Amino acid sequence: MHNTMKIFTLNSNRTLAEEIADSLGMNLGASSITRFSDGEVQINIEETVRGYDTYLIQSTSEPGNEYLMELLIMIDALKRASARSINIVIPYYGYSRQDRKARSREPITAKLIANLLESAGATRVLTVDLHAAQVQGFFNIPVDELRANKLLGDYFKEKNLEDIVVIAPENAGTGRARKLAEQLNAPIAFIDKQRKNESSAVHGINIIGDIENKSAIIIDDMIDTARTITSGAAALLEFGAKEVYACSTHGVLSEPAVSRIRESDIKEVVITNSIYLPAQKKDERIKVLSIGPLLAEGIHRVQNNESVSNLF
Amino acid sequence: MHNTMKIFTLNSNRTLAEEIADSLGMNLGASSITRFSDGEVQINIEETVRGYDTYLIQSTSEPGNEYLMELLIMIDALKRASARSINIVIPYYGYSRQDRKARSREPITAKLIANLLESAGATRVLTVDLHAAQVQGFFNIPVDELRANKLLGDYFKEKNLEDIVVIAPENAGTGRARKLAEQLNAPIAFIDKQRKNESSAVHGINIIGDIENKSAIIIDDMIDTARTITSGAAALLEFGAKEVYACSTHGVLSEPAVSRIRESDIKEVVITNSIYLPAQKKDERIKVLSIGPLLAEGIHRVQNNESVSNLF
Amino acid sequence: MHNTMKIFTLNSNRTLAEEIADSLGMNLGASSITRFSDGEVQINIEETVRGYDTYLIQSTSEPGNEYLMELLIMIDALKRASARSINIVIPYYGYSRQDRKARSREPITAKLIANLLESAGATRVLTVDLHAAQVQGFFNIPVDELRANKLLGDYFKEKNLEDIVVIAPENAGTGRARKLAEQLNAPIAFIDKQRKNESSAVHGINIIGDIENKSAIIIDDMIDTARTITSGAAALLEFGAKEVYACSTHGVLSEPAVSRIRESDIKEVVITNSIYLPAQKKDERIKVLSIGPLLAEGIHRVQNNESVSNLF
Amino acid sequence: MHNTMKIFTLNSNRTLAEEIADSLGMNLGASSITRFSDGEVQINIEETVRGYDTYLIQSTSEPGNEYLMELLIMIDALKRASARSINIVIPYYGYSRQDRKARSREPITAKLIANLLESAGATRVLTVDLHAAQVQGFFNIPVDELRANKLLGDYFKEKNLEDIVVIAPENAGTGRARKLAEQLNAPIAFIDKQRKNESSAVHGINIIGDIENKSAIIIDDMIDTARTITSGAAALLEFGAKEVYACSTHGVLSEPAVSRIRESDIKEVVITNSIYLPAQKKDERIKVLSIGPLLAEGIHRVQNNESVSNLF
Amino acid sequence: MHNTMKIFTLNSNRTLAEEIADSLGMNLGASSITRFSDGEVQINIEETVRGYDTYLIQSTSEPGNEYLMELLIMIDALKRASARSINIVIPYYGYSRQDRKARSREPITAKLIANLLESAGATRVLTVDLHAAQVQGFFNIPVDELRANKLLGDYFKEKNLEDIVVIAPENAGTGRARKLAEQLNAPIAFIDKQRKNESSAVHGINIIGDIENKSAIIIDDMIDTARTITSGAAALLEFGAKEVYACSTHGVLSEPAVSRIRESDIKEVVITNSIYLPAQKKDERIKVLSIGPLLAEGIHRVQNNESVSNLF
Amino acid sequence: MHNTMKIFTLNSNRTLAEEIADSLGMNLGASSITRFSDGEVQINIEETVRGYDTYLIQSTSEPGNEYLMELLIMIDALKRASARSINIVIPYYGYSRQDRKARSREPITAKLIANLLESAGATRVLTVDLHAAQVQGFFNIPVDELRANKLLGDYFKEKNLEDIVVIAPENAGTGRARKLAEQLNAPIAFIDKQRKNESSAVHGINIIGDIENKSAIIIDDMIDTARTITSGAAALLEFGAKEVYACSTHGVLSEPAVSRIRESDIKEVVITNSIYLPAQKKDERIKVLSIGPLLAEGIHRVQNNESVSNLF
Repeated sequence: MHNTMKIFTLNSNRTLAEEIADSLGMNLGASSITRFSDGEVQINIEETVRGYDTYLIQSTSEPGNEYLMELLIMIDALKRASARSINIVIPYYGYSRQDRKARSREPITAKLIANLLESAGATRVLTVDLHAAQVQGFFNIPVDELRANKLLGDYFKEKNLEDIVVIAPENAGTGRARKLAEQLNAPIAFIDKQRKNESSAVHGINIIGDIENKSAIIIDDMIDTARTITSGAAALLEFGAKEVYACSTHGVLSEPAVSRIRESDIKEVVITNSIYLPAQKKDERIKVLSIGPLLAEGIHRVQNNESVSNLF
Repeated sequence: MHNTMKIFTLNSNRTLAEEIADSLGMNLGASSITRFSDGEVQINIEETVRGYDTYLIQSTSEPGNEYLMELLIMIDALKRASARSINIVIPYYGYSRQDRKARSREPITAKLIANLLESAGATRVLTVDLHAAQVQGFFNIPVDELRANKLLGDYFKEKNLEDIVVIAPENAGTGRARKLAEQLNAPIAFIDKQRKNESSAVHGINIIGDIENKSAIIIDDMIDTARTITSGAAALLEFGAKEVYACSTHGVLSEPAVSRIRESDIKEVVITNSIYLPAQKKDERIKVLSIGPLLAEGIHRVQNNESVSNLF
Repeated sequence: MHNTMKIFTLNSNRTLAEEIADSLGMNLGASSITRFSDGEVQINIEETVRGYDTYLIQSTSEPGNEYLMELLIMIDALKRASARSINIVIPYYGYSRQDRKARSREPITAKLIANLLESAGATRVLTVDLHAAQVQGFFNIPVDELRANKLLGDYFKEKNLEDIVVIAPENAGTGRARKLAEQLNAPIAFIDKQRKNESSAVHGINIIGDIENKSAIIIDDMIDTARTITSGAAALLEFGAKEVYACSTHGVLSEPAVSRIRESDIKEVVITNSIYLPAQKKDERIKVLSIGPLLAEGIHRVQNNESVSNLF
Repeated sequence: MHNTMKIFTLNSNRTLAEEIADSLGMNLGASSITRFSDGEVQINIEETVRGYDTYLIQSTSEPGNEYLMELLIMIDALKRASARSINIVIPYYGYSRQDRKARSREPITAKLIANLLESAGATRVLTVDLHAAQVQGFFNIPVDELRANKLLGDYFKEKNLEDIVVIAPENAGTGRARKLAEQLNAPIAFIDKQRKNESSAVHGINIIGDIENKSAIIIDDMIDTARTITSGAAALLEFGAKEVYACSTHGVLSEPAVSRIRESDIKEVVITNSIYLPAQKKDERIKVLSIGPLLAEGIHRVQNNESVSNLF
Repeated sequence: MHNTMKIFTLNSNRTLAEEIADSLGMNLGASSITRFSDGEVQINIEETVRGYDTYLIQSTSEPGNEYLMELLIMIDALKRASARSINIVIPYYGYSRQDRKARSREPITAKLIANLLESAGATRVLTVDLHAAQVQGFFNIPVDELRANKLLGDYFKEKNLEDIVVIAPENAGTGRARKLAEQLNAPIAFIDKQRKNESSAVHGINIIGDIENKSAIIIDDMIDTARTITSGAAALLEFGAKEVYACSTHGVLSEPAVSRIRESDIKEVVITNSIYLPAQKKDERIKVLSIGPLLAEGIHRVQNNESVSNLF
Repeated sequence: MHNTMKIFTLNSNRTLAEEIADSLGMNLGASSITRFSDGEVQINIEETVRGYDTYLIQSTSEPGNEYLMELLIMIDALKRASARSINIVIPYYGYSRQDRKARSREPITAKLIANLLESAGATRVLTVDLHAAQVQGFFNIPVDELRANKLLGDYFKEKNLEDIVVIAPENAGTGRARKLAEQLNAPIAFIDKQRKNESSAVHGINIIGDIENKSAIIIDDMIDTARTITSGAAALLEFGAKEVYACSTHGVLSEPAVSRIRESDIKEVVITNSIYLPAQKKDERIKVLSIGPLLAEGIHRVQNNESVSNLF
């Protein structure tokens, strides 16, 4: 396998990339990704890729435009350097919430990016927990979407919490909640928020389902500003929950997420390292699980033409 | 407007097409769509379309493969006959539930069809209430998705039901339910079904939220075999609802939907004519609202370069 | 070879597919192709195809739209499941007669379908006796067109008929007749039909060439309603032929072909199994030759990078 | 019309282009097409085309590669100069006989050229009597194929020949012969040539059908080296025909066609000016009819969005 | 004109966009371009564009990745909102120096970006003084490249400098210098720098040509860090020039350009406002000329289908 | 290697192709490229290429349109014959000077040709010294551009000329001159020509830099009519150079290049065999170096997935 493939990374999450390479018993390919004086991306692949299957690891997390351009430019460089295949590994697919026109004259940026990646020369996508599974269909190349739910479920199983209820936030994500509930053998409930119209602020919040005296686990696909989970947690406690956890695959944690979490009554927020968590965002109440082994296994199977179906 | 555009239809829903043309003060373009002796589609456009903006109305409802092929072949004929634009009006977009890989090695047929339509030569899509709004992003051409929710909401408003609760079925569709609830100024609840795994049968059903003595309105985007709404209605009544209505934009009503509805305790099932309802499926408890005016207005605005945003 | 390729089939002609797989010492790949309750195609590939060269056998014979959609959807599934190549084996290419605009504003459906197949992801086509060889050029991917004429010629050689004349029907197909005539060392003649215009019925029939007291063999690329061969046979006998045979690669045999043949004076109609012949169409005067060995050899050579030129 | 369109020509047939422009009451657009010292084509469009519908007249006749490259380069220039549409008028479509793989590993050059023209930026094709009508389907852009048969038929009608038989040459073209025969109210016959194999020379020639004492008119789509018509004429006369004419849309007349015709017993060869006939090829027995009016009418209808169907 | 077109801008140079709109007697189209909390671009077009020719003004200057993504996303929004055409006006085309592989395994980012813009849906490009004119050919859509040289030349003409010599910097740009020299009726010279190899630093500098006691004007297409012009100016003065000016179309001026200029002996640096110059970069020795009128005239001609050739 | 690849050539430079094949220890693949009677290209590949990596050697030198069409048609034949990859080796890329719009409404033919080659099916390009390196970016497939400068430099090194100055001609090519100067450890100078406008003739010539009593070597990328080097040489000698050499990678040598060289005072013109030099153009003062070994090494590395970077 090591004679036919090479793994590269860019700047978004070098730690995760190194963990993946380690798991596979490989080194990351030599390359430098720097900036010209005016901020333009300068890429330098420092070893031959001619005829190799290449795997390129990059989350398009904040700053998303920068990391996306790095990714596109590196794909172009690999294509022109005659790589045999260009498999892009995107643990966190940025702009994934812009996946439809919610209002007139909006872009569908998640689709645009799929087109850009294909146009640049990507030949396959390996990703984790898309905001909507339909984003798979934005691509004409194969997409393997891995799931982190087992990772999250196992973590909570080990806690041996009693009387769990899994919570779907904001009138969506009941499917995701249902799945975790089955892992934990628990019922579900959801947080119902009312808005005057789609773009206005929430003006009513209600809990639907039985949460009285239960350990509530809010599950979402990503935690961005943490408004949803912190306001949800407050409501859950107010309506009688015993304690509140939150979990999600992607810890976007944009400002002021961390301070909100610190000021909230959530016992623990569980995320994965699909997005790099810088030191200043670390907190004892934020638990980070690694998806490195899952991605390494995914890459291994892809390269060896094995089914990845039981990783789903 | 009538000097620059022509409207055509195929075999799926000629009644609706005629209603739309009438609303616009036009006649349907002359064409015949027949079959050769071996069942192959034979299309004959009987008036010039050279330089015209054409609108082609066809739902890809059952038999979906037949109607889809009619649509693709007619698009090819219009393209080769030098139509200026080919706007396909698809009130019901078939295969829309196959919008992601739920399991390994599944097709994403809703995306395939988007590609086929573009490949054949469609230049714009006008459709109603997609199963998932993300299907818009399967296209690179403009998609205008109209919404029938106001139509459904207004119908229930006129009923002046007391103490309504809107019901989201099967761990999904809470967004749709939330929207109708706001129109009717009502709370929501949902039906929670548990499965051992994704493909197995339901083995537990639960109502989450308060439905006691209320008029429950189940809302879904489509009613196919009616299993969901009839089993849901039974559960709702068992758990204390006063009465149950069901509504949805698309009345797929494949076997044995009609008999299930007839045998159920649902008071009324409200659908639209996005799919043609043949005589043998008609029933006094199945109420069909017309989306003809909505589609006619949509076409009118597209052709006159007016915004369709307030039709959303 | 068996480690790098897999053969799949769909619903049009499972018997032929099994014969091909047998010839190659392989089993057909596990998959199920069923229908949802509303008739939509449901495909399930039940073994990994990642990295495999796949061969997908399907004639787009009646019901052609259904079988074509099965084919397109399966190609999509194979592509998204990361098959290395998707070689579609189409013994009978439906819609092949719609290969040009005979009148204004007609589609060129045979080209449309070529585009759809490429758009879905097919990487090569293996087919038999296209209605017009130019259909090869409708594709940008490689097309290997195999010929069944040797099969038909050998069958008639073994009959040791005396004084043969090969007949081209309806002002076309003289090239095909010429080729069979050379195999059988016989002269040719043709049936000349006159029409007022292209779409009207025949209003005159004439035999051009010497057929007196000869065994006439009508050859066509396909037999659809059998009108051509049965009216041709009647004319040939009326004008003095001793006896009449008919042969063709593709037995479309749409209604009322079989009853026409039964009521005719044709001694034997020879076809191949490029299209599945259901039990109710079987008749002692309809002889079916198998193209299974030819297709198996074609697949074998393609997979082993051998020339298929001497199969032409 | 003249405010929205411009007509340009290149070097293949300036006389015909001028005739077309005259018919339309227009001047040809100003441009120069010269050669650099090393023979590379230099194009200079000398008036604005921004926003205009452009019509570009060029046959890809001998020297076909030169004229094709002129055409492609001019299309590129028009595209980059922001022409609104680029309608290429190709009275004679060169390489049209290379429309299928007759043997292994042959190109399908007629399809290649269709792809090149579309790739360069052509938006529509207007042509006359393709070698095979299926070449229409090599394009994804609209193709309007005009027919010169009425022109040829009318010419022979005016001759008031008695006892005509229309002759299809070389086991092909019986459809074309049938059509002329109907115009002239005459029977048909054909010349049957036998070859040992597809690439070898003819080793037997036979006339099938009744030609005794008749005026035979051989019809073909093009006359290249004139071998087919001159050897056919000799055989027809030998087998008893009274006199022989030949006609075809395209007078390719490559060496030694003209001397063959001069040495033959053909009374007259009738062609059109789809290909420019240089002075040294002119002969009193070669009659050239003009397709200028037909093409002018075609262009006029296309530009005015009128149907061209009754020009077929 | 104003009934068929709309002008929009993004964040890179709103001042220039407003100047252009003013020149055309129009207002900028209403839109907002903001950021989500995680930095993702949020675009909101606040008036209908359906059927309009749209002009979108954006330089992809620093921060280039951000501004490029804004541009791509806005193009997607305009496309999906059914704009009739999407004309992107890029006064400064970022990444234009990455226009070839100078070393192995480098990207050609300027080409990648051309592909991305076309893939997103741009239908025409209007730009100013590309780093290499060949970048025009990276596009398949029409590119109109305007030239600022007359603007720069006129500025120097008005100065009435005596005894001018125009200087080409760094073994390149002699064509550009030659053109300015002709405007000013002056000779040229160039700065010759030697490197050990392509990527190493300069280790020798020489002036080739006569500069003794002359007013030297260095001309380059862009001034980035100002190293080239300041070291060039020092050398020119050392070798005997009387005084040194520098000019260029694009004032990239990335750090530490401004302080270098301030510390240099260059009398004046003349640039245009193709890139927005923030207040902190302003300096009395940096003269900014406006290309607003040139771009406004270019847009006016494009929209009115007039030739832009005399703007070149 | 020899089991997986085949090398073919066409008519432009069979001698070079044979030299390359020899270097690699291979024979050229069997094929014939002839003409039909009307000049159309007839290609016949006479051995299987199914599954092979193919290398196709053809310069698009004069007659460029003919050689380009041969190349395109052969690519189509290889594609349809199922070659695994089609690597086109173009020692001299014709039309490369048409790489931008120098005036309005010009084509960008070098880009057009890149599109045509990709559209036909080429999968990689191997070429030598493009007129502008940016032409690499006209392709979306990988381009490996080899450099002949070492070959030329070594040749002059062996001459042991004293006091060399390298000359860049016509306000361009100073980069190329700089590079050769470094190889020869020499200074540079350039020939400055003034024109009234871009298309007019030169009306002033000047030498910028010190050439007094030196051996001047003019370097250009190609020598076409030899006007540039012969007029340059005359000026150099007039201004005091001791002797003049000229060199370039590509010897286009179109009329009247050879007679100009013979009548000039240039001591020697050094070119490579990227373009075939026919006997009548040979001259003792024209020295031809072979790039066969360079191309053979390039092909060898590409086929063996080795880096070609140190061949640059």
